[in-house]
Amino acid sequence: MTDVTAYSIDGPEGRFGKTTITRREPGPTEIYIEIQYAGICHSDIHTARSEWGPARYPLVPGHEIAGVVARVGSDVARHKVGDRVGIGVAVDSCRECEECLAGYDNFCLGSGGKAKVMTYNSIGRDGLPTAGGYSTGITVEEDFAVRIPDAIPMEKAAPLLCAGVTTYSPLKRWGAGPGKRVGVVGVGGLGHMAVQIAAKMGAEVIGLGRTLAKADDALALGATDYVATTDDDAMAGLEGRFDIIISSVSDGLDLDLMVHLLKTRGVLVEVGLPTQPATFRIGALVGRNKVIAGSNVGSLSEMQETLDFCAEHGIASWVEVIGGDGIDQAYEDVIASKARYRYVLDVATFDA
Amino acid sequence: MTDVTAYSIDGPEGRFGKTTITRREPGPTEIYIEIQYAGICHSDIHTARSEWGPARYPLVPGHEIAGVVARVGSDVARHKVGDRVGIGVAVDSCRECEECLAGYDNFCLGSGGKAKVMTYNSIGRDGLPTAGGYSTGITVEEDFAVRIPDAIPMEKAAPLLCAGVTTYSPLKRWGAGPGKRVGVVGVGGLGHMAVQIAAKMGAEVIGLGRTLAKADDALALGATDYVATTDDDAMAGLEGRFDIIISSVSDGLDLDLMVHLLKTRGVLVEVGLPTQPATFRIGALVGRNKVIAGSNVGSLSEMQETLDFCAEHGIASWVEVIGGDGIDQAYEDVIASKARYRYVLDVATFDA
Repeated sequence: MTDVTAYSIDGPEGRFGKTTITRREPGPTEIYIEIQYAGICHSDIHTARSEWGPARYPLVPGHEIAGVVARVGSDVARHKVGDRVGIGVAVDSCRECEECLAGYDNFCLGSGGKAKVMTYNSIGRDGLPTAGGYSTGITVEEDFAVRIPDAIPMEKAAPLLCAGVTTYSPLKRWGAGPGKRVGVVGVGGLGHMAVQIAAKMGAEVIGLGRTLAKADDALALGATDYVATTDDDAMAGLEGRFDIIISSVSDGLDLDLMVHLLKTRGVLVEVGLPTQPATFRIGALVGRNKVIAGSNVGSLSEMQETLDFCAEHGIASWVEVIGGDGIDQAYEDVIASKARYRYVLDVATFDA
Repeated sequence: MTDVTAYSIDGPEGRFGKTTITRREPGPTEIYIEIQYAGICHSDIHTARSEWGPARYPLVPGHEIAGVVARVGSDVARHKVGDRVGIGVAVDSCRECEECLAGYDNFCLGSGGKAKVMTYNSIGRDGLPTAGGYSTGITVEEDFAVRIPDAIPMEKAAPLLCAGVTTYSPLKRWGAGPGKRVGVVGVGGLGHMAVQIAAKMGAEVIGLGRTLAKADDALALGATDYVATTDDDAMAGLEGRFDIIISSVSDGLDLDLMVHLLKTRGVLVEVGLPTQPATFRIGALVGRNKVIAGSNVGSLSEMQETLDFCAEHGIASWVEVIGGDGIDQAYEDVIASKARYRYVLDVATFDA
């Protein structure tokens, strides 16, 4: 048992405060990780505020975790002490269902009484609530930790465990690459990774947003152009031009407009989590075999691919490093779309 | 020039009457086909009644055409006199755009002043309105005629040129086959082909409809089960069970319900032509990477594949053969969903 320092929140209206939580000793197939950095994902905010249903309080969020292996269980083969590793949204799955067996651990259906275990706000195999990366250490199954290549600074690696793989997975699935034109709607925490990854995959990338506020950043991230969706003339020139449009806009996306921008066989991929019903003309998909798809994070192997891809191509998240006492303000800034582009907690400050 | 007997309609409120139209002599790369059978597609009705915009009257519909080559141009290489051939929804494309060059003639973008030429209600290369299969002969570019295998009776082959390929193409694209469960919503002209093709591809097929009226037919067509969408208990058992759901329902489809029935990575394919906006929760696609896709007919090579596949597996359209004087009644019956499952014109009756 190890006591670790963490930041937790006590209720939907609460503020984050420093606390101490206990991590179990690693079992035979587990590792204990000293956390260095944890990204702040919009999901943390939705969960902390019980916007996705009642959360388990006190809650320690954080599922974009970068750290170093400090102890290993007796049967651990994949990692050794000193390895740089990352943890994403899940810390275990049933490993026996058809999805797990097919390598889609992220879509685990559960079996034999075992369900997927999320990194926080879930119930672990020990029957206790899970606590995430806003803490100085975590014990996890070794299979759910991926290697962080040396080429990526740890603070910039953390957001790749969620924001990175969430955009890498659909870009790969739907064939982003040379000769393809990719639109990125909403250049934020997810979108700024989508721009970089799609560009490095060889696609031509065009940023799309309500205003031109993020145009310069999008170009610096690798986009060749940026267009305001409110600029009718510019938008008219984009009709039928995109192979893929990736949207992280939660609600209010004009689906008919997005479908209109797609080429024949083009795909609009939603990676946000819209909660409101949307209206669109499904008939507009038919004439040219267009597609609307959802995409949710990625598998462990896709997480590793994302990290390796980013290391190979010299990209990572654009981050602002903050301390534990900055979490509440960071949440406000994320909601106000002020993040440029990911707040990352420097966990070393917790024990300072 | 050849005079042929045809059935035409003079306006959106009109009735079909016998007339004579002229077909040009085949050019060097053209063939003249003596038509034997022409299927009646719901599209014919929408067009004839100007429901998809003002039609060119007098209109001779028909884009499910089965006939025999009677004359060939000097440079024709693909077909010879006496060959059994079929024509689908188009009789020419530009052959130079990126879609044509990639084999997607059905998505021709046009180039060099040449656009795609539809089988009827279009303007042909000769500058004259095109006229379709409700006639005793037609002159077309040889590349736009596909071979009808001897194993398929001509009257049952005609509907494969539209209804067949329209369902074959998305079933192939989205991976219908052994180990996959396919739902078919709307067992009609398109759906009755979808059931047969998906079953012969090796998938488990379940028919879905508002009532059980077509349950027996669906089972005879190859479905293993048929469920009324109004039967809440039966539907509950189908949640998350389908790899593919193919819908030919034009309007009023409950998209949220259909998405709910899909497995992880499941695909809802719409092959009808809904005109009304639909409402759905796009967020429901995200959690399990679900997909909504449109699909429109198929390419020439897919048309040939469809015919060859149906011949190999001993399937074809279930048809009711009618004469030219039965067109108006057939239209009413199609609208009332009374067709079992395709009305096919016996063109030989036109000159009787």
